[in-house]
Amino acid sequence: LKQILIARSAGFCFGVKRAIAIANETASRGSADGASGCGPEIRSLGPLIHNPQAVEELEKKGIRVVESVEEVEGGKVIVRSHGITRSDRAALDAKKVKIIDATCPFVNKAQEHARQLSAEGYAVVVVGDANHPEVKSIISYIEPGVPILTSLAGLREASGVRKVGIVAQTTQSFENLMQFVSVALRHFPEVRVFNTICNATVLRQKESTAVAGKADVMVVLGGYNSANTRRLAEICREINPRTHHVETADELPGGFLEGVSTVGVTAGASTPQWIIEALVARIRGMWAGEEIRVDLYQ
Amino acid sequence: LKQILIARSAGFCFGVKRAIAIANETASRGSADGASGCGPEIRSLGPLIHNPQAVEELEKKGIRVVESVEEVEGGKVIVRSHGITRSDRAALDAKKVKIIDATCPFVNKAQEHARQLSAEGYAVVVVGDANHPEVKSIISYIEPGVPILTSLAGLREASGVRKVGIVAQTTQSFENLMQFVSVALRHFPEVRVFNTICNATVLRQKESTAVAGKADVMVVLGGYNSANTRRLAEICREINPRTHHVETADELPGGFLEGVSTVGVTAGASTPQWIIEALVARIRGMWAGEEIRVDLYQ
Repeated sequence: LKQILIARSAGFCFGVKRAIAIANETASRGSADGASGCGPEIRSLGPLIHNPQAVEELEKKGIRVVESVEEVEGGKVIVRSHGITRSDRAALDAKKVKIIDATCPFVNKAQEHARQLSAEGYAVVVVGDANHPEVKSIISYIEPGVPILTSLAGLREASGVRKVGIVAQTTQSFENLMQFVSVALRHFPEVRVFNTICNATVLRQKESTAVAGKADVMVVLGGYNSANTRRLAEICREINPRTHHVETADELPGGFLEGVSTVGVTAGASTPQWIIEALVARIRGMWAGEEIRVDLYQ
Repeated sequence: LKQILIARSAGFCFGVKRAIAIANETASRGSADGASGCGPEIRSLGPLIHNPQAVEELEKKGIRVVESVEEVEGGKVIVRSHGITRSDRAALDAKKVKIIDATCPFVNKAQEHARQLSAEGYAVVVVGDANHPEVKSIISYIEPGVPILTSLAGLREASGVRKVGIVAQTTQSFENLMQFVSVALRHFPEVRVFNTICNATVLRQKESTAVAGKADVMVVLGGYNSANTRRLAEICREINPRTHHVETADELPGGFLEGVSTVGVTAGASTPQWIIEALVARIRGMWAGEEIRVDLYQ
């Protein structure tokens, strides 16, 4: 008996899956309207995910990536999981562009908490990469005139502030959030924190190392330039030295199943499901004639 | 030139000093009314400070310590810096006892934040020793029916809670507060913290070690059973091995000023000012004929 053991949380997180589903639905509705090719165009404001193959698939379905609202004059625009800024939304509204909102519900929450905190008189800390589109979208919901703090240095030096409200980019680490909370509590009498961190990344790492511990060989799927995938391969390798990090199943060396009863599989946050399925198909081919069980590990 | 260098924050904190001043004022007003001895009695609900000599001084002025509200039937009651519970206050009001409130303003703040948090739907964490009168007084201000959490285990296991509000006993360490904040943020989406820790203890330690570093010999005054004084002596000794921890100046060994130009002085939180002054007088006597400067270090 052979086993393929796949981490339940391998690949796309909830928000990315949802955005892709919304995009596909929008595309198929577009072609049902007879709009495909010549009707109102469908754009995505920035690539829906950071994976070239997946973006290519979407383009075939009529979804074109644009980099800014200036490039959009009409039709439909899909807002990706990161969300967009208030001003970009207003600009699209003014152009009467139809917005298909695929903002991750967890990002929506962070936006709403940032808005609420600023309305209630808190200086607002957004823990995250200030240049990331998600952080920009969260910051745009803070009421005008309210101090916005995105660095520990800025937090330490903030003057005239007594109440600090904190939200986080959904992919931040808990440790980083705690650093901001700790500095805030040393400097200000009231600190109100909304923990908006999404646990998908943490959960994926936890499940993947558990799978690596049970497997004879471990395969980590995802872009070589994907930071979260590389980190995933690193921690799996600590548990299981027979860990392969590849972008697709074709890249695995011929003898990788030698002496193997159980193959462990995981994938980074930007790895589409079909790349995981292609790996399972390849293993099934190599194990032709064997009894094979495919299990999800949770 | 000889120098006596005293840590500015040696001895009583603001709240204790204030309570003693209120007690003295109440006592002198009592005797001005001709009430001393036979008029309406003045009680203190629990000892005003944990120092027998100081309590004895107050007793001479007509302030008697009682252990519970049951022992009070009329006259005046001084509420010490820790504060009292809402129910004790109500019981005194019902007996028409005149309450002289010497609750530390920092404790008042913690009580008010606890009340406010519970009224706004937060489960309330009070970081501190659950048996300490201050913590009991803070807890009593939490609205009925609201979950009250005073241990990390209780916090981890709290169910049906989404919003957690945190206040601290004023003498808690920052590290302990942060432990509760960290656990709360791992378990609940919203955590609102009022940092009600008073910095007197931290400041006293900081100033005392600085003084120990400048002095040829260091004297730490305070009860041998006072935890904060013992800790003070410990950290001063790390800086200056010639550190003496004594309860009063008489206990210092004869030759302690040998080869000394600068004596450093500090005192624990429950050490009255006159014990510091008696030490200064003894040193002045031993250095008779020398030019002596007394400086405060801040």
